[in-house]
Amino acid sequence: MEQLKNKINEDGHIIGDSIVKVDSFLNHQLDIQLFEAMGQEFYQHFVHKKVDKIVTCEASGIAIAAITAHFFGCNVVFAKKEVSHTMTNDYYTAPVYSYTKQKESIFRIDRRFIQPDENILIIDDFLANGEATSGLISIVTQAQANVVGIGIAIEKGFQPGGRSLREKGYDVKSLVIIDQIKENQINFR
Amino acid sequence: MEQLKNKINEDGHIIGDSIVKVDSFLNHQLDIQLFEAMGQEFYQHFVHKKVDKIVTCEASGIAIAAITAHFFGCNVVFAKKEVSHTMTNDYYTAPVYSYTKQKESIFRIDRRFIQPDENILIIDDFLANGEATSGLISIVTQAQANVVGIGIAIEKGFQPGGRSLREKGYDVKSLVIIDQIKENQINFR
Repeated sequence: MEQLKNKINEDGHIIGDSIVKVDSFLNHQLDIQLFEAMGQEFYQHFVHKKVDKIVTCEASGIAIAAITAHFFGCNVVFAKKEVSHTMTNDYYTAPVYSYTKQKESIFRIDRRFIQPDENILIIDDFLANGEATSGLISIVTQAQANVVGIGIAIEKGFQPGGRSLREKGYDVKSLVIIDQIKENQINFR
Repeated sequence: MEQLKNKINEDGHIIGDSIVKVDSFLNHQLDIQLFEAMGQEFYQHFVHKKVDKIVTCEASGIAIAAITAHFFGCNVVFAKKEVSHTMTNDYYTAPVYSYTKQKESIFRIDRRFIQPDENILIIDDFLANGEATSGLISIVTQAQANVVGIGIAIEKGFQPGGRSLREKGYDVKSLVIIDQIKENQINFR
């Protein structure tokens, strides 16, 4: 997706050889017009999959999922990482290690919100080692629903998550894939 | 807003005399068509305020803010509660106590993302004691920007946050105000 590549080149901030900070438009400040273009791309790719619901995780997947759901006319469910005292029901859970936060969290989705046989589109901002995505897949699978696709804004192609998911047969649509970050330059696939 | 009142009556779940769980449509599963109607209500109320940016906090404010921003054609910034190792910049901060999570968090917004004199609309899902909203106001004020309005989905009118903010002169638009929860019945204002 050229618009997202250009935005990363213009406003992304490279740290070392593995991190590109995109907090000015993707996961702290949110460029909603860009999100609308991203949502349309996901819609065009996955529309034939008869998506019933979009599943993501808090916090940075939520806005992309919400804007994408507008195109599909469906609801969103996001996995929660913290427990509040109003959370009294039964949950599907999956342990997920975050490399950027350097800690494990437990993803939780209320059992009422994913039904057996529903067609689920998973949406997230980043795919690197695939920890978060695999946690969401685990939850959807526990619910006996179908992962019909995985939509990612930025895939780090030099980390194994995307390849591993495609080898397992998942339809992974990454809007951009970064193959290498080297000498303050980003090489896109 | 009748549509939101009806949804709360149909799908809300009352716990005791102060909590109504709305996780099936507002803060865990997200009813995006309802969010679009909510966003339009906020737009109609605040459009004359020349909103430059919407500010909210993770996680449950993000989707409402993103959908509302679609109508305003503006960006969103959400306050973060956790620190990741890519967060290397300077932040405005505010300590915020959450009654539902029974702990204090620190709200953080990168100083680059709120400019002096910007017109900021604050959006959140709930207003009860006003802790989260006051934290966001503190951050916007530190940035020397203007809080031109506060848009809330559900205000608990029996808790002091809304009254206190209106007494300070803020334009608070709550889509519904709950005056009392009694004997498994919700009384709306």
